Amino acid sequence: MDLDRLQAQVEFLVEADKLKQIMRNTLLIDATRVENDAEHSWHMALAAMVLAEYANAKDLNMLRVMKLAIIHDIVEIDAGDTFAYDDAAHLDKAEREQLAADRIFGLLPDELREEFRGLWDEYEDRSTPESQFANAIDCFMPLLHNYRTQGRQWRKHDIDSGRVLARNHKRIEDGSQVLGDYIKELVEDGVLKGYLRR
Amino acid sequence: MDLDRLQAQVEFLVEADKLKQIMRNTLLIDATRVENDAEHSWHMALAAMVLAEYANAKDLNMLRVMKLAIIHDIVEIDAGDTFAYDDAAHLDKAEREQLAADRIFGLLPDELREEFRGLWDEYEDRSTPESQFANAIDCFMPLLHNYRTQGRQWRKHDIDSGRVLARNHKRIEDGSQVLGDYIKELVEDGVLKGYLRR
Repeated sequence: MDLDRLQAQVEFLVEADKLKQIMRNTLLIDATRVENDAEHSWHMALAAMVLAEYANAKDLNMLRVMKLAIIHDIVEIDAGDTFAYDDAAHLDKAEREQLAADRIFGLLPDELREEFRGLWDEYEDRSTPESQFANAIDCFMPLLHNYRTQGRQWRKHDIDSGRVLARNHKRIEDGSQVLGDYIKELVEDGVLKGYLRR
Repeated sequence: MDLDRLQAQVEFLVEADKLKQIMRNTLLIDATRVENDAEHSWHMALAAMVLAEYANAKDLNMLRVMKLAIIHDIVEIDAGDTFAYDDAAHLDKAEREQLAADRIFGLLPDELREEFRGLWDEYEDRSTPESQFANAIDCFMPLLHNYRTQGRQWRKHDIDSGRVLARNHKRIEDGSQVLGDYIKELVEDGVLKGYLRR
């Protein structure tokens, strides 16, 4: 029993607890408050389970998809959540997140650090069917929340339907054609209902 | 494309969003507030990834463990969180949760409903190595939080070390001997530090 090793793993889990305090721009569906990264990551993993059949790729490694969902936002403990439509903040997002990944995954014992860093890089690169599907779900969920809250965050930040689709549609479609089509209709319906401008 | 099917899946995900509002008795590690079930489920899935090597069973199906972590508390949307040391509330816990499982998993299309209900039953029955390990992590995490917050919730509810171990130790040990031993030492150390009574 290597107690130092176990202690390092526990310290990583203690550090990860901070993800519950990183707030996103997305409202809960009852619109009472915004959600945090930890809740969102849970909801994303659940959505991946429920919507797996709609992945473009057949024979996805679903364990990998679940792991990607669970770890994809952990770097935001240091780097913060970057609002999808904040173009200025996106300029140095990659750099901030690389530093965060070095520090946070660096808390883990060697081979776990490599596994987790590899998963996070894979998620960011969208280079595999698993990361493409995980990215699709990551984009899908806030659009669903925005639609179900009558577009409150879209209207607050004056985001029109063109920007919503430019930011999300390809990333969803690359992982799931079905969900890409669904989102296109959702946004169109949102325009008709006055949730966002065309 | 069966749009009714996809719509049912989306409605389940919308309903599941409510898990973010079900509060537990466990404090965040910075002690600023209690955590909710969705955050806890995310943290549990992450801990299962990080601590997998300590499972008693070798060759665990980790996808199953992750799925168990993600869905294990969903019934609490209706049934509420039952505090581990509230013996009275535990009397009708099973009944409340069965009704909740019927309703909530009943939102899903047939074979997904069966899969999710099967996972939840497996979790509750602790009948497989996967559910034993998931249960171990579920018990391990709040003890870690309690220890790291100087036993504030233990002292608030006047829970002594005997009750903590009676409630948790076997359930942890059944899934992971290593984590069971670790928790025993943690609780003993907590007693020495004055975090809880012997």
